[in-house]
Amino acid sequence: MVKQQSYSLNPIEHDSLTPPDNGCVVGVDIGGTNLRLALADMTGAVLGTWSTSSVGIQDPHEIVALIRAGVEHLLDESCVPRSALRAIAAGAPGITDADTGVVIATSYLMGWRDVPLRALLEAALGVPAAVDNDVNVGAIGESWVGAAKESRDFVFLAIGSGVGAGIVLNRRLFQGMGWTAGEIGYMLVPGTPEEPVERGKPGALEGLIGGEGIKEQWQKLWTEERTALPRDLNATEIFDYALAGEPLAQTMLEQAARILAYAIYNISLILNCPLFVLGGGVGVHPALCEAARTVLKERGARAMPELALSVLGADAQLIGAVRLALDTASARRGIAA
Amino acid sequence: MVKQQSYSLNPIEHDSLTPPDNGCVVGVDIGGTNLRLALADMTGAVLGTWSTSSVGIQDPHEIVALIRAGVEHLLDESCVPRSALRAIAAGAPGITDADTGVVIATSYLMGWRDVPLRALLEAALGVPAAVDNDVNVGAIGESWVGAAKESRDFVFLAIGSGVGAGIVLNRRLFQGMGWTAGEIGYMLVPGTPEEPVERGKPGALEGLIGGEGIKEQWQKLWTEERTALPRDLNATEIFDYALAGEPLAQTMLEQAARILAYAIYNISLILNCPLFVLGGGVGVHPALCEAARTVLKERGARAMPELALSVLGADAQLIGAVRLALDTASARRGIAA
Repeated sequence: MVKQQSYSLNPIEHDSLTPPDNGCVVGVDIGGTNLRLALADMTGAVLGTWSTSSVGIQDPHEIVALIRAGVEHLLDESCVPRSALRAIAAGAPGITDADTGVVIATSYLMGWRDVPLRALLEAALGVPAAVDNDVNVGAIGESWVGAAKESRDFVFLAIGSGVGAGIVLNRRLFQGMGWTAGEIGYMLVPGTPEEPVERGKPGALEGLIGGEGIKEQWQKLWTEERTALPRDLNATEIFDYALAGEPLAQTMLEQAARILAYAIYNISLILNCPLFVLGGGVGVHPALCEAARTVLKERGARAMPELALSVLGADAQLIGAVRLALDTASARRGIAA
Repeated sequence: MVKQQSYSLNPIEHDSLTPPDNGCVVGVDIGGTNLRLALADMTGAVLGTWSTSSVGIQDPHEIVALIRAGVEHLLDESCVPRSALRAIAAGAPGITDADTGVVIATSYLMGWRDVPLRALLEAALGVPAAVDNDVNVGAIGESWVGAAKESRDFVFLAIGSGVGAGIVLNRRLFQGMGWTAGEIGYMLVPGTPEEPVERGKPGALEGLIGGEGIKEQWQKLWTEERTALPRDLNATEIFDYALAGEPLAQTMLEQAARILAYAIYNISLILNCPLFVLGGGVGVHPALCEAARTVLKERGARAMPELALSVLGADAQLIGAVRLALDTASARRGIAA
């Protein structure tokens, strides 16, 4: 099996002695809402993408069957023979042992426990596979062709419904001894509730700056007297109204930005990381980034980290998975040679 | 110059082809109160120690002159010829570039800025020198012969007047891109003040769980009606009274333990480190460790870190400096050969 723990984010090396490889790879982004695939050639150029709904699907075999159908479709569409497929890699929405390719746990939505996803993919497709946590895979994407291309150390902060961090140190993913490094959704900062959280429920930080958390906070702030805006808004809509100058939406934005800035400040103290890349559906909103930057500036930290917006946006995980698949293919090729 | 950034905490290797080295090394712990030295043979066995007051000394040349005097004294005392000295290493109480051996900044007490301490030591003693932050050097000590001997990843928490963390990942010190990794004295957790702190002043976390901070908090809690204990107690005395069952001292202990546990919890979320070693004058108090453990258990983290007391106590930095000097000697020997 391909060892993933020492995954290094260096440029892809083209060995001039080896003939060009006309193969291809597939990257997969497994989400709770959508399952997305990208077919790419060995330089990383994307030949085609495919997606389908994954809402309500809990059985990993069903997910793997969908992935297989998607791969067949992409190969057919691009007129690439089945034999050209060299590797596949997937980002999974949960704690993942990248060494063994086992998804240890996902949230209650999918409810996976110890799913040998890499083995299932290898059995279904007959090529080497790699699996890692989706936020880590997003960090790989941003490091490869995104906002962190030049960075030795950086943190990719994915803020969507949940909140997680992909940590890159010395150009390598840092996953921690139990594969949970960067699980910052539970972080405690001034303003987060102190009561212990039930496992599987949103963490203290997530409950305030994740998409669902911001919606909830908005509904707590909302009264007809305070605002003319509807009670039922999502995080991005609220931030749009804040940018347009709506006072209650601005209060909500400032509250979320303060909590986010505190989390970034704490991570920065520990890791002394010069760059944080904000990604995920909520995290890519420019108003949040700008407001968090303001809070950080007020604090005047010794080593003030730079905040940058994800360049790849919703594609960070998918593009990261392509890169992981390319590395998996070349590692296997190296073994075969 | 000896490169320290890739310092690896592996067992000392004895090359059977090389004749035994009858040399010796010196480890130095530079503190704001005391300057301490240890002379050791090439197996790390300590031959003698020496210390002197450093209170009020700000000039680095004066510190280096004292170190030189201490080295001469130790060599004389142990009847070791001057020519046997192979290397010296020092832990400095501030942000230190271990690559160049420059102390970038210490607190206002010493007020050092960009002091080329390694070069000064090499010039004064004529042997290779190495320098790192004192908390990092303490982590080296605990990793070598202390509470973290078996640990790939761990955090050494030094809680004295100040609060800092020495981070070891993959058996290497992790110092961060600006040499400030682990500067957690400024961390924000529920209960710490949110106002930005002036540079050089105690950080938010330090102000609550550092030795001076605990003293101050005690004086805020203290009234004649609440307790028969004196108003003027230090952290260790307060914790002793808490162990003896004094209610106000117990309140103080619980408050400090809660803040400490939150900091450990946050670091653990980010690094997924299985072990935290508590050191420093305040940190080694068993009551604090036990009370912090209780708070962490209540939170029921997925990957609950183990809390252990420093085995080396006040000697962690000194012993770590000896180890750093041994590695510096063998690196230089390797270069000479």
